[in-house]
Amino acid sequence: MQADITELETKAREAKAASRKLANTSSDIKNKALLTMASDLIKRKEEILAANKQDCDTAKDSGMDAAMLDRLLLNDDRIAGIASDVRSVAALPDPIGEMIEMRTLPNGLLLGRKRVPLGVIATIYESRPNVTIDISTLCLKSGNAIILRGGKEAFHSNMTLVKIARDACYGSGIPAGAIQFIESRERSLISHVLTMKNVIDLVIPRGGAELVNMVRENATMPVLAGGVGVCHTYVDSEANLDWATAIVYNAKVQRPTVCNALDCIIVHKDIAARYLPMMARELNKAGVELHCDEQSLQILHSIASLKIKPAVDEDWGKEFLSLVAAVKVVDSLDEALEYIERYGSGHSEAIITENYNSAMRFLNEVDAAAVYANASTRFTDGAQFGLGAEVGISTQKFHARGPMGLRELTSYKWIVFGNGHVRP
Amino acid sequence: MQADITELETKAREAKAASRKLANTSSDIKNKALLTMASDLIKRKEEILAANKQDCDTAKDSGMDAAMLDRLLLNDDRIAGIASDVRSVAALPDPIGEMIEMRTLPNGLLLGRKRVPLGVIATIYESRPNVTIDISTLCLKSGNAIILRGGKEAFHSNMTLVKIARDACYGSGIPAGAIQFIESRERSLISHVLTMKNVIDLVIPRGGAELVNMVRENATMPVLAGGVGVCHTYVDSEANLDWATAIVYNAKVQRPTVCNALDCIIVHKDIAARYLPMMARELNKAGVELHCDEQSLQILHSIASLKIKPAVDEDWGKEFLSLVAAVKVVDSLDEALEYIERYGSGHSEAIITENYNSAMRFLNEVDAAAVYANASTRFTDGAQFGLGAEVGISTQKFHARGPMGLRELTSYKWIVFGNGHVRP
Repeated sequence: MQADITELETKAREAKAASRKLANTSSDIKNKALLTMASDLIKRKEEILAANKQDCDTAKDSGMDAAMLDRLLLNDDRIAGIASDVRSVAALPDPIGEMIEMRTLPNGLLLGRKRVPLGVIATIYESRPNVTIDISTLCLKSGNAIILRGGKEAFHSNMTLVKIARDACYGSGIPAGAIQFIESRERSLISHVLTMKNVIDLVIPRGGAELVNMVRENATMPVLAGGVGVCHTYVDSEANLDWATAIVYNAKVQRPTVCNALDCIIVHKDIAARYLPMMARELNKAGVELHCDEQSLQILHSIASLKIKPAVDEDWGKEFLSLVAAVKVVDSLDEALEYIERYGSGHSEAIITENYNSAMRFLNEVDAAAVYANASTRFTDGAQFGLGAEVGISTQKFHARGPMGLRELTSYKWIVFGNGHVRP
Repeated sequence: MQADITELETKAREAKAASRKLANTSSDIKNKALLTMASDLIKRKEEILAANKQDCDTAKDSGMDAAMLDRLLLNDDRIAGIASDVRSVAALPDPIGEMIEMRTLPNGLLLGRKRVPLGVIATIYESRPNVTIDISTLCLKSGNAIILRGGKEAFHSNMTLVKIARDACYGSGIPAGAIQFIESRERSLISHVLTMKNVIDLVIPRGGAELVNMVRENATMPVLAGGVGVCHTYVDSEANLDWATAIVYNAKVQRPTVCNALDCIIVHKDIAARYLPMMARELNKAGVELHCDEQSLQILHSIASLKIKPAVDEDWGKEFLSLVAAVKVVDSLDEALEYIERYGSGHSEAIITENYNSAMRFLNEVDAAAVYANASTRFTDGAQFGLGAEVGISTQKFHARGPMGLRELTSYKWIVFGNGHVRP
């Protein structure tokens, strides 16, 4: 264990030292490094595939299930996809160095805020090896040094990806030490990482709820954790029912395993008898199972072949991450608002209505990272919102909320130009 | 203890409920409440003075020292000062509701970020009763509900101030429950406050280092803590020595007890023999004691009547908060930068130079909340920087850095207007 801690602390110190130089490394150098990395990933794909085969073979032998194996697997297409994502990050504007609100004060002091990197970002992640490159490129582009601690299943794949990334970066002028990979497999090392608040400025856990919660509860530094998304769509009495049907279908079906997918449909009682059957038949085409409250069950139970069942208490406020949705009928917008406040997780919430006042009330009163009128919650995403890329979606209110792009990996400092100024 | 926790939890729930309404309370109502509060503080000053006399008498009887007693004391002038600060906050622009970067996406979605309050802010503070009004007004103006937990010495003063604030606010349309004052004196209640991350969005400790550290280490929610300021001023070989003398004097002497006051003077060796005597004689007029490294001691020791002594290890990186400064001679700008990196606390750092490259390197490379060329570090302050008012100066990098004004007490949410938009 002592050797593991020594490895970690040495690498963290190197990252810290590199981060100081990286903060003043030009966009040109960072972009050149990223573009070199993208072509090297393709050029050196045989190395990656060989290492990945080693990981996949071990995983198969150990009896890993097919879904997990698929997450671990790299192939030509996936490597091309990773390289293409790196090129996209290179093409994004560099947030570092931006001067915010620079102005001359009445006393002649010229002052403004300059956008600077956070410093050193540690990430603790599980099986998918693409995270190694994904997070590294976003951190580098935003001027942050990175400490990577990946899952043991992807160890050889990650090692090889890091080697290629390092070769490309250090050869292009990125300060050596900016990308650190923790090789030790000692599990308790993670707890040690979480105590290093003097060296690590932010920690990003990427993986299951257990990992994320452990990091949140034990980290002494800020944590950027993708939030749980319990997302509601409220279909108002004055909803355009065609919109409502298409939007609910899209929000539930387009990609059910992600945090911005719909979990609960709330329907105003005045349109429930008309809307619920339309909606249920549409969702049924995709095999969605509905967990219905008493009123919706009464409306839907007589329609043949629907996958419906009575909702139980645990269905409210649940993130299904699958083709299941809860259905609730309410008497009023107020009841819908109260319901969302009680069961929402502050991620993404939508109203479908053509009533101006209802739309504005919903947008103003619902407290969530993203609130929608007449659109699918599936849009809550860095790329969709025009941020270019994201490291996650925050449901915290501090620092940044919703999709976290490059700018959200930065801080700022106040810069003041004087001419012998003293405070009166 | 159970009764104390019940009081706390009930009041926190009331604050949370009020915060939802307060988030959509107009600037007009908030400003009217603040202006009424300002006049009521004057109108009802006899109540305040009577309550304060009770606190001061108890404190005297318990043997409180003169400095502490002075912090506790309210009089006509101080009440007028508090009321005037409230009026200043009323006059500041309201950050809430500001739309940030609103734009139409290529698919027609109209989206932007709307500035919203954090929600519920708890503050734990020590003797000075003016903090009660100071923090309450900043929180209210920024749309946040507030839970106050003041020191026992100022209990009656605080109770009376809160009563006046509440009467003014609730009578002006601020949602009832927005200002909560914890009456229980049970000390372990603070630990309980720090666990309430589902109700309290931010905690602000105001007081000594012990309180601040305890809150930082135990809070489960974000903490806004005024940072320790170990501030250096580096006098370069190409400094304008008149500026250097005036700035060092100002930074050390103008208000030595605050976090942006100078702690350590770093002098380039090439100008040490000329500058140090000028500077020392000037500082000596104000009775400043200098703790000198070997080289500076050699230069200064022969000058009669200076208050100087050899520096000890603890002097480097120390926040003196008094008329004491450490003095260090360096061989180069690089050595100064390394020194600041090692001993600075990331608060405020200054260079005095007329060399363009040295100034730019210092501003770019020093990692601190505020970096200065040719100006006094005493300017690091919300009012001086044009933020109008501040709740503290953050040396953290997350969320906000440097002076924290109204805007830094806010978050944002993404607002999206669609017309039946679904994600392709």
